[in-house]
Amino acid sequence: MTIKLYCFGESGNAYKAALPLELSGLAWEPVKVDFFGGETRSPDYQALNIMGEVPVLVDGDVTLTQSGVMQMYITEISGKFGGATPAEARDVMRWVFFDNHKVSSQAGMLRFQMNFLPEDKRNPDIIGFIAARLKSAFKTLDAGLEGRDWLVGDGPTNADFSNCGYLFYPEPFTFTRSDWPNIDRWLSNIEALPGWKHPYDLMPGNPSERA
Amino acid sequence: MTIKLYCFGESGNAYKAALPLELSGLAWEPVKVDFFGGETRSPDYQALNIMGEVPVLVDGDVTLTQSGVMQMYITEISGKFGGATPAEARDVMRWVFFDNHKVSSQAGMLRFQMNFLPEDKRNPDIIGFIAARLKSAFKTLDAGLEGRDWLVGDGPTNADFSNCGYLFYPEPFTFTRSDWPNIDRWLSNIEALPGWKHPYDLMPGNPSERA
Repeated sequence: MTIKLYCFGESGNAYKAALPLELSGLAWEPVKVDFFGGETRSPDYQALNIMGEVPVLVDGDVTLTQSGVMQMYITEISGKFGGATPAEARDVMRWVFFDNHKVSSQAGMLRFQMNFLPEDKRNPDIIGFIAARLKSAFKTLDAGLEGRDWLVGDGPTNADFSNCGYLFYPEPFTFTRSDWPNIDRWLSNIEALPGWKHPYDLMPGNPSERA
Repeated sequence: MTIKLYCFGESGNAYKAALPLELSGLAWEPVKVDFFGGETRSPDYQALNIMGEVPVLVDGDVTLTQSGVMQMYITEISGKFGGATPAEARDVMRWVFFDNHKVSSQAGMLRFQMNFLPEDKRNPDIIGFIAARLKSAFKTLDAGLEGRDWLVGDGPTNADFSNCGYLFYPEPFTFTRSDWPNIDRWLSNIEALPGWKHPYDLMPGNPSERA
């Protein structure tokens, strides 16, 4: 049975599930969600996910929402990326929660505000507010990667796949890799993983198609 | 061994761990963190938690940060609040992630902006932006509670303890219980749990002490 991931290229939250699916070797396929055409606000989509969010994962009779839950499920069925010990497993979840609260949530909001919102609706105060909070999160992430190749243990885990969710995108959102040497080095480690793909190559849909 | 929770009364994120600790019957005690005096920005605190956040849980040689990880740990050692089946367990985590991304994170920010930030630093655009996003999260939460006493299954779980984190506080943050009938009824269910306590009664520190 092929796992289906409802997603679109611009969604870093979807990438957080698509990347471990791809790297785990599980059979999966993306199903494009037309977010910019309003599909997530449709009654059919709301029936699939009351939270109205992307991604949604369907594996037979299991339907999951929230990328963090999908990562736990991928670990459950593949045995990969969850940490090697109970202490590591808790540390992986710690960084996944940090990402959901402080990194991807704010990076996603800021990238949307700065790139996908019509120009006349962009508000410098709101952009500045999110940018300051995101900078604080990058400080923590960079500090957590000091002297380390991966956030937890000796190899890639869901901690890495969660926090990198938005960090490969080319659109400006006040993130410059060279400003954060540890983050920069760690992103290169992720890019060097066999089978790694950029979000726009892993999932259907990207800004050039809407230009 | 008594579990120590580093916390303070105003922190809904700390309440998300303190409440299941209290209701689980585990032996625990709060340790007050002087957030408003800058303690979380001190080198000692950063050494305890590189994320610089409250709460921190210490149980012997186990030190945890992120309330979601603490909830999983409380479930692990008490057998409570994690869901009755694997499907329920995933659904509990789904709502915990939703809370971390959309409810408590934004309610906490907004309550801080509207109450604890000096008046001359409050920005109506930023307050309006967060309020609109929080309202959308309340819509989802209210819909998820339609016809249900609890978010998942037939009793209280970490899903409930996470999403209610900021919702008992009296300070204004654009949340009025009567606007959301399902949320209102569900909060009453939580308040009726044997041993339930308001955050200002469960943890040390509250605004009246700083007045």
